[in-house]
Formats: sequence, C-alpha cells, structure tokens
Amino acid sequence: MTLAVRYTSARTLDTAPAAASEPGPGEVELAPAYVGICGTDLHIFHGDMDTRVAAPAVLGHEMAGRIVRVGPGVEGWRPGDAVTVMPLRWDDTCPACRAGHQHICQHLDFIGIDSPGAMQQRWTVPASTLIRLPGTLPLDQAALVEPTAVAVHDVGRAAVKDGEKVVVVGGGPVGILIALVARAAGAEVRVVELNAHRRLLAEELGLSTWDPATADITALVQRWTGEAGADVAFEVSGAAGGVDTAVDVLGVRSRLCLVAIHPRPREINLHRFFWRELSLVGARLYDRGDFERAVTLVADGTIPAQRLITKIVPLTEAPAAFEALESGGDVMKILVDCTDGTRGAAV
Amino acid sequence: MTLAVRYTSARTLDTAPAAASEPGPGEVELAPAYVGICGTDLHIFHGDMDTRVAAPAVLGHEMAGRIVRVGPGVEGWRPGDAVTVMPLRWDDTCPACRAGHQHICQHLDFIGIDSPGAMQQRWTVPASTLIRLPGTLPLDQAALVEPTAVAVHDVGRAAVKDGEKVVVVGGGPVGILIALVARAAGAEVRVVELNAHRRLLAEELGLSTWDPATADITALVQRWTGEAGADVAFEVSGAAGGVDTAVDVLGVRSRLCLVAIHPRPREINLHRFFWRELSLVGARLYDRGDFERAVTLVADGTIPAQRLITKIVPLTEAPAAFEALESGGDVMKILVDCTDGTRGAAV
Ligand SMILES: [Zn+2]
Ligand SMILES: [Zn+2]
Repeated sequence: MTLAVRYTSARTLDTAPAAASEPGPGEVELAPAYVGICGTDLHIFHGDMDTRVAAPAVLGHEMAGRIVRVGPGVEGWRPGDAVTVMPLRWDDTCPACRAGHQHICQHLDFIGIDSPGAMQQRWTVPASTLIRLPGTLPLDQAALVEPTAVAVHDVGRAAVKDGEKVVVVGGGPVGILIALVARAAGAEVRVVELNAHRRLLAEELGLSTWDPATADITALVQRWTGEAGADVAFEVSGAAGGVDTAVDVLGVRSRLCLVAIHPRPREINLHRFFWRELSLVGARLYDRGDFERAVTLVADGTIPAQRLITKIVPLTEAPAAFEALESGGDVMKILVDCTDGTRGAAV
Repeated sequence: MTLAVRYTSARTLDTAPAAASEPGPGEVELAPAYVGICGTDLHIFHGDMDTRVAAPAVLGHEMAGRIVRVGPGVEGWRPGDAVTVMPLRWDDTCPACRAGHQHICQHLDFIGIDSPGAMQQRWTVPASTLIRLPGTLPLDQAALVEPTAVAVHDVGRAAVKDGEKVVVVGGGPVGILIALVARAAGAEVRVVELNAHRRLLAEELGLSTWDPATADITALVQRWTGEAGADVAFEVSGAAGGVDTAVDVLGVRSRLCLVAIHPRPREINLHRFFWRELSLVGARLYDRGDFERAVTLVADGTIPAQRLITKIVPLTEAPAAFEALESGGDVMKILVDCTDGTRGAAV
C-alpha cells in the first residue's frame, strides 16, 4: 500500500493508504517525489471549493517525480524517466477546444481539483499530460515548473517586451515568478507587496519592491516612468486595493493582466480604461508551450527555484503544513516530500 | 458679424454675434455648413462639464463645411474646398504623443470642448485638422464623418474580423455606426437596445436587434453562437446593466470594447475575465486614418448617413433643439444648419 494526502472536509486533511491500480491504456503510473502546496490547495482545505471537490479528494498539482509503470499503447516514455505533469484534461469538442484554447475547455478536468491529485506515493495520469524533465534538474526544484508555467503564460498574455516597465501587484509565489519571468523578457520590474518577509525575499532575488502601506505607489510609478505610467501591471493580489493600484499605475495604451481570482465583482475605474485606452487581459493556466518554456527557465537557473522553497515536509506532515500555512505570509513555497520513510515499505 | 451658438450656463444656450478674425499662420477660416449635436454637447448643456468648459463656449465638433480664407503658410488648401475637421490639437511632447498616440495626448485640446467649436458661421482652426471631403458628398451627410470615425476607431480597437459575431450594447448614434462599420468588416451583428424607435431604425438599416427588457440576451447569444459566446461586445450604453450584458455574452478569449463613458467605477465580473481569458479594451476618439476611412464609408453609402439624420434645424433654433433632445430616445442625429437665412446678412 502507498499513502495519499486527502481532503476529507473543511479544514481537515488526513493521510490514508491508497490502492495502486495498473495503469490503463494511454496512462502512466508515477511516483511523485515533491509536490508543492498552492493557493488553490489552501482554498480547497478551507472548504471554499466543496461544491467542486468531491471529498475524500487527493490534492496537489505542482509536482515532479518519476515514471514507475507505463500502460498499454504508451510510447516514448519509460520507467525511471523524470517528469512533471500539465494537470489538464479537455474534451476536444467544446467551442473553446475547437478554437484551439484547450486550457479553457468548457469541460476542463483540472487534475488535483476535479480528479485525484499528486500528493500521494503513486499517481496515475494520462501520458498526454507528461512533460519531460532534464536529468540534471533536481526534482524538488522541478516541482516549481507548474507555477512557473503559470507565470510564463501570464507574461505572454500581457505581451511583455524588452525594455518595458512592469508593476507586479502581489509578491507571493506567483507574483515573484511573474516578476522573474518578466525580467527575463527584458522588462524592468517593481513588486508591490505588503508582507515584509516576502519583500525581503524578492529583494534578495534582485527584484525592487515597494510597500503599499507606507508608499504612494502611483506617485512612485509616475516618477519611475517619467510621468508616462507603467507599460504593464499584473494583478496578483486578489484584493480590491490591488486592482485599484494596478489600474492607477498604467500609462496610455498600457495593459493590465488579471492573474488573481476575484470571486466577487469588483469596482473598476472604467473611465481610465476609456480615457487612456487601457487593456485588461485575463490569464488562466497555461499550455504545453508555457510548460516547456518553464522547464527551461527553472533548469537554467533563471528561476532560482531553490531560493523559493521555504520548507520541505514529509508526506505524513502535510496536514500540519496546511494548518501552518493558514497564518500565511512568511512562507513562499512549501513542498511535500512523497519519497519519505514510508516509501521503503510501500514499494 | 456672424452668429454663434454659445453655452452660457447650465441648461442655457444663446445665439450671439461672433467677431470674425483673420486666420493666423497655419490656420484656416471655415464656413461650417452642418454641425451635429452629440452626447458630449448635451453633457455640456446639462452643466456636467462646467469644470472643463469655460463659458461662454461655442459648442460643436461634428461638422462639414467649406474653406473661406487660408492664413499665411497654409499649403494645399483653397477657399471653397469642402472639408471636415478632426477636432484635436496635441502637444507632441507628452509621453502619449511620443509613443505615437497623439489622440490620447495628456494635454489634448479637444476643439469644441476645450476651445471654441463649430456651431457658428465662421470657425478658425489649424489647417492640420482638415480632412478633405469628396465634392460629390452632400455636406449634411458629411457631418456624420466624425461620429463614423469614432466607430471606425472602436471597431479597429476591437480588431473585428470577417465572420465574427458581434454584440453592440446600446443602439444610439455611436452604437448604430459601430454596428454598421463592424458589418462592413464582415461581422454578424446584433444590437441590444431598450428604445423601440431606435430598434426600428436599426432594423430598417438591416441590423438585427434585441430588446433587453423582454429578452434574455445571454440566452439568445448562446443560441445564436452555438453555445460559444460572442467574439466581440461593444459597451456603448453607459449603463451598469450594459456592462454586465457585454461581459456575460462573451465567449472564450473574446473582447469587450469599452466605448461609453462611465464616470463612476463599475462593478465588473473579473472572475469571468480570468476564467475565459477575456480582454477589455478602452477606445477613445480616433486618428487621421480612422477619419479618412470614415469619409470613404460615408461617401460610398456603407454608412447611410441620410437615414441617420432625424432633423436639420437652423442655427437660431439650436437652443430649442438641445432642449428637445433632453427627452432623448426617439431621435438619432440632429444637425444644426449654419448656412441659414442670417447668413446673407452676415457675409
Ligand atoms: Zn473543450
Ligand atoms: Zn501629448
């Protein structure tokens, strides 16, 4: 038997044995090595997504690991291969899929939310979801490929260009990754973040930061840009004030990329969108090209993954890690190590 | 002496003699023939723009007429030439101008709001604002070139393509012009409009319309598009409900073009922007290319300008026409005839 971390009800996780099943046609069985805990996992943990998540549910979609078994008809993959997973299954028939936007499929199965996730010692997924990892890339760092793919997608949606001035509102894991990817695209970047610990980490990574609690962000951006305003703002905070800041800093014909989830409608200064001919673009998930670019950025050190990993906890301590994350703020990324002591017995 | 229509204070217009002045270097003196009354003129009339408009102020920026005199150094123009005016003066030095977006100049002089407008029998403007009209185009129809240029700009900002499905929310003059320009670009168009008179006129122009008071617009769009949603929506209503409709009808990766002015912040369903990767683009005014395209569309009958002109009133009756427009709704475009009886005496 192998172990899995399961969401059972609001604010309750357990670890329980999971029955291994032979991979079916087109499937592979993986041994996840490291699985990141992301904001969506925390939302599920809080019970906010109970209408979507069928408990007991195995969480996790930011992972790296190795192939254990391949099912019938799977070609190009072998046991032992290091992989990450693009956790999407689509129907290929809805209008979104037919238009080539499979990641926005109207019947999308997000693996780790809508179907069992990676936070377990064996995980069976379609071979079509696999992304190959270079053998030189440590698997803990590779667990950051998925959130990096989000950032690559966001920066692409905003069409960030060399020399542009970019404001990232929100300096959590996704915000920091967006800032790093935008910088790699040649942009000058400022990160707006309330939490001092997160600002410190960003500064250590060479990113300039501003504290919106003590600084007039709009005035700073005006001075920084010679009164032109920023070319691009990313709203990654999820807060009403973050939306206002992201709109207020923009210059003529500038772009606001909406990354954070705002479950409720937000008041927006539409007059400024009209007056300055601003654009707003929503950005969600990623495609295979984003994932492959993310592998390169993590592997070549553009994303200093090791610096973003605050802590690695054994699978059996994942429930406690979720509870600790409730306090938020002072951590960046926590990984769950699925290769811990129980593994010897399980394999 | 010649006459001018002047805004003097909230809800008060008069007609008064205006002193003619020799056109200065680079300027031309025009004899406006027809001047349209637009929504912005009504806002000024209502007193809503008193902080911007210095009374007494001559209104009007939708015009066609002829050159009377050319000032020193003006080349390529002669008395008698039929022209319209792109009523913009910019500073060429601000960040917007330097980025090539002169129509969004941070110190834009919109002639007819920030400086004297066209609703008078003589009007002196920079020769750089002139747009040549074909001799075959009646000047009353040519007064619709300016609002048509707005529509051309909007359809361009939304990047409407052949075969796309477009919803125009708001069937006033600008909405109808957008619908006609989008149709000329090959789009299938639906106009959403509460006012029965406006719907009837749109239908007479071959546009399909929906009444949001009696129909479920989102359901109609879903059926019309095979559940895909519209490719583009134009928000031309200025109403909160119009914004909601424009967002709700959009399909994956679709675009909302924001045309109307929303002075106050509006609640927006940002989650839908995220989930469907929608875009919102603000659109304001026009550039010279838009104007030249608009001349072509009016001249070749793509825009049936004659059908959009509800009434033509002599200059001396302009104040009464503004008051009648207060009731709104049942008119499309009213023109002021500046060539009326007083002219013989004035010239
Ligand atoms: Zn689909
Ligand atoms: Zn300027």
